[in-house]
Amino acid sequence: MEFSSKLLENAVLEMSNLPGIGKRTALRLVLHILKQPMQNTTAFTQAILDLKNNIKLCSSCHNISDHEVCEICTNPDRDHQTICVVEDIRDVMAIENTRTYKGIYHVLGGKISPIDGVGPSQLKITSLLEKVKQGTCKEIIFALSSTIEGDTTNFYIYKQLKGFDVETSTIARGIAIGDELEYADEVTLGRSLLHRIPFEKTLKSL
Amino acid sequence: MEFSSKLLENAVLEMSNLPGIGKRTALRLVLHILKQPMQNTTAFTQAILDLKNNIKLCSSCHNISDHEVCEICTNPDRDHQTICVVEDIRDVMAIENTRTYKGIYHVLGGKISPIDGVGPSQLKITSLLEKVKQGTCKEIIFALSSTIEGDTTNFYIYKQLKGFDVETSTIARGIAIGDELEYADEVTLGRSLLHRIPFEKTLKSL
Repeated sequence: MEFSSKLLENAVLEMSNLPGIGKRTALRLVLHILKQPMQNTTAFTQAILDLKNNIKLCSSCHNISDHEVCEICTNPDRDHQTICVVEDIRDVMAIENTRTYKGIYHVLGGKISPIDGVGPSQLKITSLLEKVKQGTCKEIIFALSSTIEGDTTNFYIYKQLKGFDVETSTIARGIAIGDELEYADEVTLGRSLLHRIPFEKTLKSL
Repeated sequence: MEFSSKLLENAVLEMSNLPGIGKRTALRLVLHILKQPMQNTTAFTQAILDLKNNIKLCSSCHNISDHEVCEICTNPDRDHQTICVVEDIRDVMAIENTRTYKGIYHVLGGKISPIDGVGPSQLKITSLLEKVKQGTCKEIIFALSSTIEGDTTNFYIYKQLKGFDVETSTIARGIAIGDELEYADEVTLGRSLLHRIPFEKTLKSL
Protein backbone atom coordinates (compact mmCIF):
# COMPACT_ATOMS: atom_id res chain seq x y z
CA MET A 1 0.00 0.00 0.00
CA GLU A 2 1.35 3.44 -0.97
CA PHE A 3 0.82 6.24 1.54
CA SER A 4 1.18 9.91 0.71
CA SER A 5 1.58 10.66 4.40
CA LYS A 6 3.87 9.17 7.05
CA LEU A 7 1.35 10.15 9.75
CA LEU A 8 -1.39 8.24 7.98
CA GLU A 9 0.87 5.26 7.36
CA ASN A 10 1.87 5.13 11.01
CA ALA A 11 -1.73 5.30 12.25
CA VAL A 12 -2.80 2.58 9.80
CA LEU A 13 0.12 0.35 10.87
CA GLU A 14 -0.76 0.76 14.54
CA MET A 15 -4.45 0.09 13.85
CA SER A 16 -3.63 -3.04 11.84
CA ASN A 17 -1.76 -4.44 14.88
CA LEU A 18 -5.17 -5.16 16.40
CA PRO A 19 -6.26 -8.78 15.95
CA GLY A 20 -8.39 -9.43 12.88
CA ILE A 21 -7.81 -5.94 11.48
CA GLY A 22 -6.02 -6.01 8.13
CA LYS A 23 -4.38 -3.06 6.39
CA ARG A 24 -7.47 -2.20 4.33
CA THR A 25 -9.82 -2.26 7.31
CA ALA A 26 -7.27 -0.28 9.32
CA LEU A 27 -7.22 2.37 6.59
CA ARG A 28 -11.02 2.52 6.59
CA LEU A 29 -11.09 2.95 10.38
CA VAL A 30 -8.35 5.59 10.38
CA LEU A 31 -10.05 7.59 7.62
CA HIS A 32 -13.27 7.41 9.63
CA ILE A 33 -11.44 8.77 12.67
CA LEU A 34 -10.01 11.56 10.50
CA LYS A 35 -13.52 12.67 9.57
CA GLN A 36 -14.72 12.75 13.19
CA PRO A 37 -14.58 15.85 15.39
CA MET A 38 -11.43 16.07 17.53
CA GLN A 39 -13.36 15.53 20.79
CA ASN A 40 -14.55 12.10 19.61
CA THR A 41 -10.98 11.07 18.93
CA THR A 42 -9.68 12.25 22.28
CA ALA A 43 -12.60 10.47 23.99
CA PHE A 44 -11.60 7.28 22.13
CA THR A 45 -7.89 7.43 22.95
CA GLN A 46 -8.55 8.62 26.50
CA ALA A 47 -10.95 5.71 27.18
CA ILE A 48 -8.26 3.25 26.11
CA LEU A 49 -5.49 4.93 28.11
CA ASP A 50 -7.74 5.24 31.19
CA LEU A 51 -8.52 1.55 30.96
CA LYS A 52 -4.84 0.61 30.64
CA ASN A 53 -3.74 2.90 33.46
CA ASN A 54 -6.49 2.32 36.01
CA ILE A 55 -7.85 -1.18 35.49
CA LYS A 56 -7.30 -3.63 38.34
CA LEU A 57 -7.76 -7.34 38.77
CA CYS A 58 -10.03 -8.16 41.69
CA SER A 59 -7.77 -9.37 44.52
CA SER A 60 -10.28 -12.08 45.36
CA CYS A 61 -11.55 -13.55 42.07
CA HIS A 62 -9.05 -12.00 39.56
CA ASN A 63 -11.91 -10.64 37.46
CA ILE A 64 -11.31 -7.27 35.80
CA SER A 65 -12.43 -4.48 38.10
CA ASP A 66 -12.36 -0.72 38.72
CA HIS A 67 -11.73 -1.33 42.42
CA GLU A 68 -9.47 -3.46 44.63
CA VAL A 69 -12.28 -6.03 45.00
CA CYS A 70 -14.81 -6.38 42.16
CA GLU A 71 -18.52 -5.58 42.28
CA ILE A 72 -19.49 -9.25 42.21
CA CYS A 73 -17.25 -10.22 45.13
CA THR A 74 -18.47 -7.27 47.25
CA ASN A 75 -22.18 -7.81 46.45
CA PRO A 76 -23.85 -9.12 49.65
CA ASP A 77 -26.80 -10.48 47.60
CA ARG A 78 -24.59 -13.05 45.89
CA ASP A 79 -23.98 -16.56 47.15
CA HIS A 80 -20.35 -16.49 48.31
CA GLN A 81 -20.36 -20.23 49.00
CA THR A 82 -20.62 -21.15 45.32
CA ILE A 83 -17.58 -20.42 43.13
CA CYS A 84 -17.70 -20.76 39.37
CA VAL A 85 -14.22 -21.39 37.93
CA VAL A 86 -13.72 -19.82 34.49
CA GLU A 87 -10.87 -19.25 32.09
CA ASP A 88 -11.04 -15.51 31.50
CA ILE A 89 -13.19 -12.46 32.04
CA ARG A 90 -15.12 -12.95 28.82
CA ASP A 91 -16.57 -16.11 30.37
CA VAL A 92 -17.65 -14.13 33.43
CA MET A 93 -19.46 -11.69 31.12
CA ALA A 94 -21.08 -14.54 29.19
CA ILE A 95 -22.40 -16.14 32.38
CA GLU A 96 -23.49 -12.78 33.85
CA ASN A 97 -25.47 -12.15 30.67
CA THR A 98 -27.58 -15.26 31.36
CA ARG A 99 -28.77 -13.60 34.64
CA THR A 100 -29.24 -17.07 36.13
CA TYR A 101 -26.09 -17.42 38.25
CA LYS A 102 -26.01 -15.87 41.71
CA GLY A 103 -22.71 -17.23 43.03
CA ILE A 104 -19.25 -15.70 42.67
CA TYR A 105 -16.41 -16.42 40.23
CA HIS A 106 -12.79 -17.38 40.12
CA VAL A 107 -10.90 -16.37 36.97
CA LEU A 108 -7.94 -18.67 36.30
CA GLY A 109 -6.44 -16.53 33.55
CA GLY A 110 -6.02 -19.47 31.17
CA LYS A 111 -5.95 -23.26 30.94
CA ILE A 112 -3.16 -25.76 31.58
CA SER A 113 -1.59 -26.19 28.15
CA PRO A 114 1.93 -27.63 28.00
CA ILE A 115 2.11 -26.97 24.24
CA ASP A 116 1.72 -23.24 24.93
CA GLY A 117 4.03 -23.43 27.95
CA VAL A 118 1.21 -22.81 30.43
CA GLY A 119 1.55 -24.88 33.60
CA PRO A 120 -0.57 -24.83 36.79
CA SER A 121 1.78 -22.28 38.39
CA GLN A 122 0.92 -19.65 35.77
CA LEU A 123 -2.77 -19.91 36.62
CA LYS A 124 -4.56 -18.52 39.68
CA ILE A 125 -5.08 -21.95 41.23
CA THR A 126 -3.37 -21.39 44.60
CA SER A 127 -5.73 -18.58 45.57
CA LEU A 128 -8.71 -20.82 44.71
CA LEU A 129 -7.37 -23.56 46.97
CA GLU A 130 -6.85 -20.96 49.72
CA LYS A 131 -10.54 -20.05 49.57
CA VAL A 132 -11.49 -23.72 49.86
CA LYS A 133 -9.09 -24.24 52.79
CA GLN A 134 -10.75 -21.37 54.64
CA GLY A 135 -13.91 -23.49 54.51
CA THR A 136 -16.23 -20.74 53.29
CA CYS A 137 -16.86 -22.44 49.96
CA LYS A 138 -19.44 -25.21 49.54
CA GLU A 139 -19.45 -25.81 45.80
CA ILE A 140 -16.99 -25.36 42.96
CA ILE A 141 -18.51 -25.26 39.46
CA PHE A 142 -16.06 -25.90 36.65
CA ALA A 143 -17.05 -23.81 33.62
CA LEU A 144 -13.98 -24.20 31.43
CA SER A 145 -14.21 -24.84 27.72
CA SER A 146 -14.71 -28.44 26.70
CA THR A 147 -11.25 -29.10 25.25
CA ILE A 148 -8.34 -31.32 26.28
CA GLU A 149 -6.76 -28.31 28.01
CA GLY A 150 -10.01 -27.46 29.78
CA ASP A 151 -10.53 -31.03 30.95
CA THR A 152 -6.89 -31.26 32.11
CA THR A 153 -7.29 -28.09 34.14
CA ASN A 154 -10.57 -29.32 35.66
CA PHE A 155 -8.93 -32.60 36.62
CA TYR A 156 -5.83 -30.94 38.08
CA ILE A 157 -7.90 -28.68 40.32
CA TYR A 158 -10.24 -31.57 41.21
CA LYS A 159 -7.28 -33.61 42.46
CA GLN A 160 -5.98 -30.68 44.54
CA LEU A 161 -9.41 -30.38 46.17
CA LYS A 162 -9.39 -33.97 47.42
CA GLY A 163 -9.77 -34.19 51.19
CA PHE A 164 -11.59 -30.86 51.44
CA ASP A 165 -15.28 -30.69 52.24
CA VAL A 166 -16.40 -29.11 48.96
CA GLU A 167 -18.76 -30.26 46.22
CA THR A 168 -17.58 -30.06 42.63
CA SER A 169 -19.61 -29.96 39.45
CA THR A 170 -19.16 -29.07 35.78
CA ILE A 171 -21.62 -27.18 33.61
CA ALA A 172 -23.89 -29.47 31.58
CA ARG A 173 -22.79 -30.47 28.08
CA GLY A 174 -25.48 -31.35 25.60
CA ILE A 175 -27.48 -30.31 22.58
CA ALA A 176 -27.86 -26.52 22.45
CA ILE A 177 -31.39 -25.08 22.76
CA GLY A 178 -32.83 -24.79 19.26
CA ASP A 179 -30.32 -27.22 17.70
CA GLU A 180 -31.47 -30.20 15.68
CA LEU A 181 -30.37 -33.67 16.80
CA GLU A 182 -29.29 -34.84 13.36
CA TYR A 183 -26.63 -32.12 13.12
CA ALA A 184 -25.16 -32.66 16.60
CA ASP A 185 -21.76 -34.33 16.86
CA GLU A 186 -21.66 -37.87 18.28
CA VAL A 187 -19.71 -37.02 21.45
CA THR A 188 -22.13 -34.28 22.47
CA LEU A 189 -25.20 -36.36 21.63
CA GLY A 190 -23.75 -39.37 23.47
CA ARG A 191 -22.98 -37.28 26.56
CA SER A 192 -26.42 -35.66 26.52
CA LEU A 193 -28.00 -39.15 26.60
CA LEU A 194 -25.65 -40.33 29.35
CA HIS A 195 -26.36 -37.26 31.50
CA ARG A 196 -30.09 -37.16 30.83
CA ILE A 197 -32.19 -35.06 33.17
CA PRO A 198 -35.46 -36.06 34.94
CA PHE A 199 -38.30 -34.53 32.96
CA GLU A 200 -39.77 -32.81 36.04
CA LYS A 201 -36.49 -30.88 36.39
CA THR A 202 -36.66 -29.78 32.75
CA LEU A 203 -40.27 -28.67 33.21
CA LYS A 204 -39.21 -26.44 36.11
CA SER A 205 -36.61 -24.61 34.03
CA LEU A 206 -39.09 -23.69 31.29
CA MET B 1 -23.72 -6.94 27.66
CA GLU B 2 -22.91 -6.80 31.37
CA PHE B 3 -19.63 -5.15 32.34
CA SER B 4 -17.99 -5.55 35.71
CA SER B 5 -15.94 -2.42 35.05
CA LYS B 6 -16.98 1.06 33.93
CA LEU B 7 -13.51 1.62 32.46
CA LEU B 8 -13.87 -1.49 30.34
CA GLU B 9 -17.41 -0.59 29.33
CA ASN B 10 -16.34 2.89 28.28
CA ALA B 11 -13.40 1.62 26.21
CA VAL B 12 -15.62 -0.98 24.49
CA LEU B 13 -18.29 1.66 23.74
CA GLU B 14 -15.70 3.99 22.21
CA MET B 15 -14.18 1.15 20.18
CA SER B 16 -17.59 0.07 18.90
CA ASN B 17 -18.16 3.59 17.52
CA LEU B 18 -15.76 2.67 14.72
CA PRO B 19 -17.57 1.61 11.53
CA GLY B 20 -18.14 -2.13 11.19
CA ILE B 21 -16.99 -2.85 14.75
CA GLY B 22 -19.78 -4.36 16.87
CA LYS B 23 -19.77 -4.68 20.66
CA ARG B 24 -18.35 -8.20 20.66
CA THR B 25 -15.49 -7.34 18.30
CA ALA B 26 -14.85 -4.16 20.31
CA LEU B 27 -14.57 -6.25 23.48
CA ARG B 28 -12.13 -8.62 21.78
CA LEU B 29 -9.99 -5.69 20.59
CA VAL B 30 -10.04 -3.96 23.98
CA LEU B 31 -9.09 -7.17 25.82
CA HIS B 32 -6.24 -7.60 23.33
CA ILE B 33 -5.06 -4.05 24.09
CA LEU B 34 -5.26 -4.84 27.83
CA LYS B 35 -2.85 -7.74 27.36
CA GLN B 36 -0.31 -5.65 25.44
CA PRO B 37 2.59 -3.81 27.06
CA MET B 38 1.81 -0.18 27.92
CA GLN B 39 4.23 1.20 25.30
CA ASN B 40 2.29 -0.50 22.49
CA THR B 41 -0.90 1.17 23.67
CA THR B 42 0.66 4.62 23.92
CA ALA B 43 2.18 4.13 20.45
CA PHE B 44 -1.30 3.27 19.16
CA THR B 45 -3.13 6.21 20.74
CA GLN B 46 -0.26 8.60 19.96
CA ALA B 47 -0.24 7.63 16.28
CA ILE B 48 -3.95 8.44 16.06
CA LEU B 49 -3.65 11.73 17.94
CA ASP B 50 -0.59 12.76 15.89
CA LEU B 51 -2.51 12.05 12.71
CA LYS B 52 -5.52 14.07 13.88
CA ASN B 53 -3.43 16.98 15.11
CA ASN B 54 -0.86 17.29 12.34
CA ILE B 55 -2.41 16.02 9.14
CA LYS B 56 -2.95 18.58 6.39
CA LEU B 57 -4.80 18.62 3.11
CA CYS B 58 -2.53 19.50 0.21
CA SER B 59 -3.35 23.12 -0.73
CA SER B 60 -3.12 22.21 -4.41
CA CYS B 61 -4.84 18.82 -4.87
CA HIS B 62 -6.57 18.40 -1.46
CA ASN B 63 -4.94 15.01 -0.99
CA ILE B 64 -3.97 14.08 2.57
CA SER B 65 -0.43 15.22 3.30
CA ASP B 66 2.17 15.80 6.03
CA HIS B 67 3.15 19.08 4.37
CA GLU B 68 1.48 22.18 2.96
CA VAL B 69 1.76 20.73 -0.55
CA CYS B 70 1.75 16.95 -0.96
CA GLU B 71 4.60 14.78 -2.24
CA ILE B 72 2.84 14.09 -5.52
CA CYS B 73 2.24 17.76 -6.31
CA THR B 74 5.85 18.69 -5.46
CA ASN B 75 7.38 15.80 -7.40
CA PRO B 76 9.10 17.24 -10.52
CA ASP B 77 9.08 13.82 -12.23
CA ARG B 78 5.29 13.80 -12.45
CA ASP B 79 3.29 15.14 -15.37
CA HIS B 80 1.67 18.29 -13.97
CA GLN B 81 -0.38 18.80 -17.15
CA THR B 82 -2.55 15.72 -16.51
CA ILE B 83 -4.98 15.89 -13.60
CA CYS B 84 -6.91 12.84 -12.42
CA VAL B 85 -10.12 13.86 -10.64
CA VAL B 86 -11.06 11.46 -7.81
CA GLU B 87 -13.58 11.35 -5.00
CA ASP B 88 -11.38 10.82 -1.97
CA ILE B 89 -7.88 9.93 -0.89
CA ARG B 90 -8.52 6.20 -0.97
CA ASP B 91 -8.90 6.50 -4.71
CA VAL B 92 -5.53 8.26 -4.91
CA MET B 93 -3.98 5.35 -3.02
CA ALA B 94 -5.69 2.80 -5.25
CA ILE B 95 -4.39 4.49 -8.41
CA GLU B 96 -0.92 5.00 -6.94
CA ASN B 97 -0.79 1.27 -6.16
CA THR B 98 -1.15 0.50 -9.89
CA ARG B 99 2.18 2.35 -10.50
CA THR B 100 0.98 3.21 -14.01
CA TYR B 101 -0.19 6.81 -13.55
CA LYS B 102 2.40 9.59 -13.68
CA GLY B 103 0.13 12.66 -13.62
CA ILE B 104 -1.18 14.53 -10.59
CA TYR B 105 -4.53 14.35 -8.78
CA HIS B 106 -7.42 16.49 -7.70
CA VAL B 107 -9.42 15.19 -4.72
CA LEU B 108 -13.02 16.48 -4.80
CA GLY B 109 -13.88 15.25 -1.31
CA GLY B 110 -17.12 13.59 -2.42
CA LYS B 111 -19.69 13.42 -5.22
CA ILE B 112 -22.65 15.63 -6.04
CA SER B 113 -25.51 13.89 -4.22
CA PRO B 114 -28.65 15.94 -3.56
CA ILE B 115 -30.12 13.10 -1.46
CA ASP B 116 -27.20 13.44 0.98
CA GLY B 117 -27.31 17.23 0.78
CA VAL B 118 -24.02 17.46 -1.12
CA GLY B 119 -24.03 20.12 -3.83
CA PRO B 120 -21.20 21.34 -6.09
CA SER B 121 -20.27 24.08 -3.60
CA GLN B 122 -19.31 21.50 -0.95
CA LEU B 123 -16.81 19.89 -3.31
CA LYS B 124 -13.40 21.22 -4.34
CA ILE B 125 -14.53 22.09 -7.86
CA THR B 126 -13.62 25.80 -7.92
CA SER B 127 -9.93 25.12 -7.29
CA LEU B 128 -9.93 22.59 -10.13
CA LEU B 129 -11.42 25.17 -12.50
CA GLU B 130 -8.80 27.68 -11.31
CA LYS B 131 -6.03 25.30 -12.38
CA VAL B 132 -7.63 24.90 -15.79
CA LYS B 133 -8.07 28.68 -16.17
CA GLN B 134 -4.34 29.16 -15.51
CA GLY B 135 -3.82 27.09 -18.66
CA THR B 136 -1.21 24.72 -17.20
CA CYS B 137 -3.47 21.68 -17.51
CA LYS B 138 -3.84 19.73 -20.76
CA GLU B 139 -6.00 16.77 -19.75
CA ILE B 140 -8.57 16.07 -17.06
CA ILE B 141 -9.21 12.37 -16.35
CA PHE B 142 -12.45 11.64 -14.52
CA ALA B 143 -11.95 8.67 -12.18
CA LEU B 144 -15.12 8.84 -10.10
CA SER B 145 -17.13 5.77 -9.23
CA SER B 146 -19.58 4.61 -11.86
CA THR B 147 -22.80 5.61 -10.08
CA ILE B 148 -25.50 8.20 -10.78
CA GLU B 149 -23.75 10.56 -8.36
CA GLY B 150 -20.38 9.96 -10.00
CA ASP B 151 -21.79 10.52 -13.48
CA THR B 152 -23.61 13.67 -12.34
CA THR B 153 -20.39 15.06 -10.89
CA ASN B 154 -18.46 14.22 -14.07
CA PHE B 155 -21.08 15.95 -16.18
CA TYR B 156 -21.25 19.03 -13.93
CA ILE B 157 -17.49 19.56 -14.11
CA TYR B 158 -17.46 18.76 -17.84
CA LYS B 159 -19.98 21.56 -18.44
CA GLN B 160 -17.94 24.01 -16.36
CA LEU B 161 -14.87 23.20 -18.46
CA LYS B 162 -16.57 24.17 -21.73
CA GLY B 163 -14.71 26.89 -23.58
CA PHE B 164 -11.38 26.00 -22.01
CA ASP B 165 -8.61 24.37 -24.01
CA VAL B 166 -8.46 21.11 -22.06
CA GLU B 167 -9.03 17.48 -23.02
CA THR B 168 -11.34 15.37 -20.87
CA SER B 169 -11.53 11.60 -20.51
CA THR B 170 -12.97 9.01 -18.17
CA ILE B 171 -11.30 5.79 -17.03
CA ALA B 172 -12.32 2.76 -19.11
CA ARG B 173 -15.27 0.68 -17.90
CA GLY B 174 -15.36 -2.97 -18.89
CA ILE B 175 -14.88 -6.56 -17.86
CA ALA B 176 -12.28 -6.84 -15.10
CA ILE B 177 -9.07 -8.76 -15.85
CA GLY B 178 -9.65 -12.41 -14.91
CA ASP B 179 -13.46 -12.11 -14.91
CA GLU B 180 -15.64 -14.45 -16.96
CA LEU B 181 -17.98 -12.94 -19.55
CA GLU B 182 -21.01 -14.99 -18.50
CA TYR B 183 -21.03 -13.48 -15.01
CA ALA B 184 -20.61 -9.85 -16.14
CA ASP B 185 -23.63 -7.54 -15.84
CA GLU B 186 -25.29 -6.43 -19.09
CA VAL B 187 -24.44 -2.73 -18.77
CA THR B 188 -20.74 -3.38 -18.25
CA LEU B 189 -20.58 -5.97 -21.02
CA GLY B 190 -22.53 -3.67 -23.37
CA ARG B 191 -20.21 -0.77 -22.63
CA SER B 192 -17.09 -2.88 -23.07
CA LEU B 193 -18.31 -3.85 -26.55
CA LEU B 194 -19.20 -0.27 -27.43
CA HIS B 195 -15.80 1.03 -26.26
CA ARG B 196 -13.79 -1.80 -27.77
CA ILE B 197 -10.07 -1.24 -28.12
CA PRO B 198 -7.87 -1.89 -31.20
CA PHE B 199 -6.10 -5.19 -30.62
CA GLU B 200 -2.66 -3.66 -31.23
CA LYS B 201 -3.26 -1.31 -28.31
CA THR B 202 -4.15 -4.26 -26.05
CA LEU B 203 -1.01 -6.10 -27.17
CA LYS B 204 1.11 -3.13 -26.10
CA SER B 205 -0.28 -3.14 -22.56
CA LEU B 206 0.54 -6.82 -21.99
